[in-house]
Parts: sequence; C-alpha cells; structure tokens
Amino acid sequence: MDAWTLGMTWLDYAAVAVFAASGALAAARRNHDVVTFGFFAAVTGVGGGALRDLLIGAPVFWVKQPAYVLVCLAAALMVWLFGSGRWRETILVWLDALGMAAYSVVGAAKAEALGIPALAALVMGVLTATFGGVVRDVLAGEPSVLLRREVYVSAAVLGAGAYVVLRAAGLGASPAGLIAMAAAFSLRGGAIIWRWTLPGFPDHRRRVER
Amino acid sequence: MDAWTLGMTWLDYAAVAVFAASGALAAARRNHDVVTFGFFAAVTGVGGGALRDLLIGAPVFWVKQPAYVLVCLAAALMVWLFGSGRWRETILVWLDALGMAAYSVVGAAKAEALGIPALAALVMGVLTATFGGVVRDVLAGEPSVLLRREVYVSAAVLGAGAYVVLRAAGLGASPAGLIAMAAAFSLRGGAIIWRWTLPGFPDHRRRVER
Amino acid sequence: MDAWTLGMTWLDYAAVAVFAASGALAAARRNHDVVTFGFFAAVTGVGGGALRDLLIGAPVFWVKQPAYVLVCLAAALMVWLFGSGRWRETILVWLDALGMAAYSVVGAAKAEALGIPALAALVMGVLTATFGGVVRDVLAGEPSVLLRREVYVSAAVLGAGAYVVLRAAGLGASPAGLIAMAAAFSLRGGAIIWRWTLPGFPDHRRRVER
Repeated sequence: MDAWTLGMTWLDYAAVAVFAASGALAAARRNHDVVTFGFFAAVTGVGGGALRDLLIGAPVFWVKQPAYVLVCLAAALMVWLFGSGRWRETILVWLDALGMAAYSVVGAAKAEALGIPALAALVMGVLTATFGGVVRDVLAGEPSVLLRREVYVSAAVLGAGAYVVLRAAGLGASPAGLIAMAAAFSLRGGAIIWRWTLPGFPDHRRRVER
Repeated sequence: MDAWTLGMTWLDYAAVAVFAASGALAAARRNHDVVTFGFFAAVTGVGGGALRDLLIGAPVFWVKQPAYVLVCLAAALMVWLFGSGRWRETILVWLDALGMAAYSVVGAAKAEALGIPALAALVMGVLTATFGGVVRDVLAGEPSVLLRREVYVSAAVLGAGAYVVLRAAGLGASPAGLIAMAAAFSLRGGAIIWRWTLPGFPDHRRRVER
Repeated sequence: MDAWTLGMTWLDYAAVAVFAASGALAAARRNHDVVTFGFFAAVTGVGGGALRDLLIGAPVFWVKQPAYVLVCLAAALMVWLFGSGRWRETILVWLDALGMAAYSVVGAAKAEALGIPALAALVMGVLTATFGGVVRDVLAGEPSVLLRREVYVSAAVLGAGAYVVLRAAGLGASPAGLIAMAAAFSLRGGAIIWRWTLPGFPDHRRRVER
C-alpha cells in the first residue's frame, strides 16, 4: 500500500470519526441516552459515504468493514465521557472542516475510480461530505446545515471540483487530492474565522429567516 | 429512436427541469446563496428518479448521464436570474403539474420495462413523481407536500395506476402513456384551479393543523 | 418450509402490517385523506426493510412481492374504517413492540444469511426495526422516535445484538431468534408499562427539550 493510499485510509477513518463526533454532539445537546448517541454518531459518520456508494452502485463501504461502525461508536463514547464544553465544540468545528475537506476528495476519487463521469463524481464528493450532516440535522429536528448561510457546501464543491479538474488536467491522484483538500479546508477555515457567506438571493420581498 | 421514445426523453428532461426549478424556488424563499440553489435544484430534480432506480435495482439514471445534473443547475441559474415573482410561481405550479404527470408515467414505465410487478410499478411511478418534492420540503424545513391537503399524490397515483392498468389491458406504451399522463395532469390541474381535496379522516377529536 | 421459516414469514407480514398501521395513525392524527393514509402506511411498513436491503445489496424485498404493499394498504384501510380511538392506540403500541422485536431479529438474520459481519448485521437489525418509524415521523413533521427518551432503539439493539451473539455462540436460528425476540419485546414492554428511560447525557448546561 503506497503512502497516498495509506494516507487516504487514515483520512477516511479520521473523517468518519469527526463526523460521528458531530452527530454525538447533536445528541448531547438534547441530553439523549447513550444508545441514541451511538445511533446519531453512526448515521452522521457513515451516512454520506453510504449514499455515495448506493448511487454509484458500489457495495456500501461500512457493511463489510465494520471497523467504521466501531470508530463511530468510539467517537460517541468519547463525546459521552468528555462532554461537550465550549472549547470542545471549537475543536470539533475544525476537525469537521478537515473531515469535510477529506470527504469531498475521497468521494470524488472513489466515483472517478469507478468510471463515473466528472460532473457526477463532483456531485458524489459533495454528497459524501455533506449528506451525513444533513441527515443528522433532519433527525435531530434542527435546521439543516444547508439552511445556514455560512460557506460549507461551497467548500465541498470547491474540494470535489478541484480534484476532478486537476485529474482531468492530467495530475496524479496524490497531488490532485492534496491540492483539492487544501483548497476546501482553506475556504471552510476562512468561513469559520471570518464568517464568510456567499451573497444570498436578491429578493426584494425578503422573508424573515425562521 | 421512435417518436414515443423521443417524446419521453424530452418529457423526462423537462420534468427534471421543472422539479429542479421548484427546488431552487424553495431556496429562493429563504434567500439562500447560489450553491444552495444548485443543491436544492439537483436534489429535487433527480431525487425521485434516483430512489426509483435504487429500489428497482437499476443504475441510477443521472450518474452516467450528467446532462441531467446540468439541466438542474441551469434551472437553478434561471430562477436566480429571473427571480421568483408571483406570476412565476403560477407558471411553476403548472409546469410542476406537467412534470408530476410525466414522472408518474415515466417511473411506472421504467419499472414495468424491468419486469417489476404491476403494483410495485405503480408505487415506483408515485415515488418518482413525489419523492423529489418530499426531500426538498424536508431539507427546507417546510411542511412536506404530503401534509398539504390539496390533491397531489392522488394525481400521481391516478397517472401511474392508469398506465399500469392500460398496459395490462393490452394497450401499447405510447397510447397508455399519453392517456395516463392526460388523466394525471387533468386531476392535478382541477385541484389547482378549484382547490380539490379528498375528504379527510373523519375524526371527531379533530386537532388543529399545525 | 419448516416451522421457523413459516413463522418468520408470518411475523414478517405481521410486522409490516403493524408498522403500516402506525403510519396510517400518524396520518389520522392530522385528518389526512385516504391516499396519504396509504402513502404513510407503505413508507412506514416497508421503509426499514427497504433501507436494509439497499445497504446489504439484496433486491428490495417488497418490489418483487407486492403482497407486502397490499398488506400496508389493507392496514391503512383498517385504520381509516375503525378509527384511532384511545384504546386502539394502546393496542397499536403493543403490536408495534411486537413488530419492532420481530424486525430487529428478521433484519439481523437476513443480513447474517448473506454473510454480513456480525456488527453490521446488528446495525441492519436496528435499522430494519426503527427506520420506517423515523421516516414516518420526519414526513409527518413530528419529533422523531429517536428524540423521545423512552427505551425503543435500545430494545432493537438488544434484539439484534442477542440474535447475533447467540448465533455466534453456535445456537440455531430458531432458538436464537425466539430468545432475541423475547428479550427485545420484554425490554420494550417494560418501557411501555413503567416508562423506562436510559440515563441522559449528564450535561450541566441543560437545554429545555423542544
């Protein structure tokens, strides 16, 4: 296994873990029990990749490799044990940015490796990076990450798009992946620090955000 | 490619476009940014067909033909550029009725062509015609189209059901499809104009609609 | 067909029927029309099993055997005809407990029979038993069963987990299934009678449950 594959495997598990932790934190916010912690962690951690695999017709990645589910449960346990203090949420938002950046590239790369066309591979990267969080928010009855105005989906689009474009331009998987990941992480990081938003739809009959 | 197949292909793209536009309008109502517009347009436009393909075990239609995703993004761009004025929503509700009518038949026809039994083919038609809108509403945090009392799902049931019954009665795909589509569109159109509703569950302990 | 297989088949249909009835009751609570009754009944009745089949790569069980859909529609009709009085909800909550217990085992057993590893088989059992109800609640705009504090998911975890462990310990499918089902049903039954809850996340900055 070369360094790139090894690095991607580690990133993959790390991304599952931070997404799972964000799911457990959503459960923590409502004082749920430990089983619900595990459920939210698992759905958030592996949901995006599961949808990607279903759509591209690949075997769902965690079904034959339950280590992914164990990682989710371990992340849930960590959140349970070490609480959800304010600084922990700060750490998590940064880990989540890393996970999102990694997943946008991992998702696009897996689709591309299966011969999916570039545009669909981009969509797969975006779905892998965002769908777990969407399901987490819908299940928790919270406003979906899609409805927040901060740059998030856009960073996933940048990551997956950069990977697809760089690969089409002839770059190897390793440099393309590293550059794309750095781009996605930088954009999301900037959005976290400086609260970047894209301009909203310029509607004169504005309604109040719920 | 005969006239029926050609017509169905056009209808298919047209249905994707109008559903995508309705997704973008949902994003417009909350003044979202252009990336969220694209996300909602894509999910609403291809969501119903994607679920149908997953359930019947067919390759998901838009993954290998990214033109569908491009159509969704173009529809989102159109909504962004030309706004969401009142008359545009009126046009859209009628285009949506056409899309729903087309999709209820397209979904049932695709399932039938794969040897799915009649009742399951009917369900596929209904899911194709309604699921994209359901996901749009759930993601947008709006009351699902299922919870509105106006005749909508029923029109999809009529379209898919008429197609399945006419085919079982020996009619060709073209006439069966046209008759079924006309029936679904007429029922939905009547519901739009005259606000038809089916009688609700006759519960004496009525609760107030949220 | 031996007694175990026959019994499982009956339990399977019975579980679909009671879940479908719980979906129809959710529609009844909002005085929906008969078509929406059918939609909610079908989604709740076959949703969990459909997700399980998609994830493990099996053909979706109800697509080729539409009898399952007919059972859902029949359950919806029964709820429509015989109302949703208070005692009927009491009966239903117990039937639902039986359905959940059965499905947690049926789901794990189907996954195990396809060679899915034990931990993933456990997850499949839990998803089969709970996902239909989760979709029902999300579509109906009600707080998801996951957000209620009563022991429910935990009982599904116990049922699927006991089956997987007993099978790994060398027990036959019949005794393992019966013991696991009894365990899940007992835990859920106790939760219904004595309102058992697991301890919630011990957060000092408690927020009020919405």
